[in-house]
Amino acid sequence: MKLLEDKIVAEGNAIGSDILKVDMFLNHQIDPLLIDEMGKEFFRLFEGCGATKVVTVESSGIAIAVAAAKYFGVPALFAKKATHKNVGSDIFTARCYSFTHGKEYMMNISKKYLHPGDKVLIIDDFLAGGNACNALLDIISQSGAEVVGIGIAIEKGFQPGGAALRQKGYKVRSLAIIESMEDGKITFRPDEDCF
Amino acid sequence: MKLLEDKIVAEGNAIGSDILKVDMFLNHQIDPLLIDEMGKEFFRLFEGCGATKVVTVESSGIAIAVAAAKYFGVPALFAKKATHKNVGSDIFTARCYSFTHGKEYMMNISKKYLHPGDKVLIIDDFLAGGNACNALLDIISQSGAEVVGIGIAIEKGFQPGGAALRQKGYKVRSLAIIESMEDGKITFRPDEDCF
Repeated sequence: MKLLEDKIVAEGNAIGSDILKVDMFLNHQIDPLLIDEMGKEFFRLFEGCGATKVVTVESSGIAIAVAAAKYFGVPALFAKKATHKNVGSDIFTARCYSFTHGKEYMMNISKKYLHPGDKVLIIDDFLAGGNACNALLDIISQSGAEVVGIGIAIEKGFQPGGAALRQKGYKVRSLAIIESMEDGKITFRPDEDCF
Repeated sequence: MKLLEDKIVAEGNAIGSDILKVDMFLNHQIDPLLIDEMGKEFFRLFEGCGATKVVTVESSGIAIAVAAAKYFGVPALFAKKATHKNVGSDIFTARCYSFTHGKEYMMNISKKYLHPGDKVLIIDDFLAGGNACNALLDIISQSGAEVVGIGIAIEKGFQPGGAALRQKGYKVRSLAIIESMEDGKITFRPDEDCF
């Protein structure tokens, strides 16, 4: 998605060969018009997938997921992060290790909002190693719902998460795939190589 | 806002005389069309306020703030919650006690995104005692920015936060003000009494 790639180049901050800060428009400050366009693009990419729910993780995924859900005309649902294991019987829960924060957390979704028969489109802001996405997949699997697609804003193509998910057969579409970052210079994977 | 009041009555869950659960459409699962209408309504209520930024707190405030920011054509910005005091010099920070979670946390906003000259519209999902809102006001005051309004989705009118903020001279507008909850029955304050 050229609009997003241009924004990353203009306002993102590549630190070394691995860290990309996009808190100017996505992770802390949020550009609402860009977010709306991203929601529209996810709808174009996954149109006809039959999604009954868009699922993401708090906090950075929420704005994008709600924008996409609006175009699909279905509810958005965000997994909550907790530091302690919630032992309630009313939630689906999965363990997730965050490399960004260097710690493990629990990801929870209420059993009230995911059921067998639900078709879930996962939306998230970043895909790198795939830990957060795999925890979401675990939760959705517990619920008996089906995953119909995984839409990512920014994928780090040089990390293994995306390739592993595609190999498992998931339809993964990323609006921008970063091939490499060297000395602050960001190279994107051309769109046609993604799919 | 009748649409929101109707939704609260139809899908909210009043527990005792104080707790209102709206995780069916606002706090966990999110109704994207309702959220968009709420953003539009905040724009109507605060049109002409000159807002340059819409500020909220993660996580539940994000969707509403982004919807409102879209109508104003300005960035949204969310304060991040941290359990530990971040001693970096690059953030504005304030302490906040959450009655919902029974614990204290730090609220942080990067100094990059709030400046003197900014006119801030605060948007949040709930206003009860006013702790979260007061922490945001503290942060905005540290930045030298000006608060031009406070827009709340659901205000608990029987708690003191809203009255205290209005008494201080802030323009507070809540889309639904709950006058009382008794045995699960929710009574709203009529719109004309709010302002």
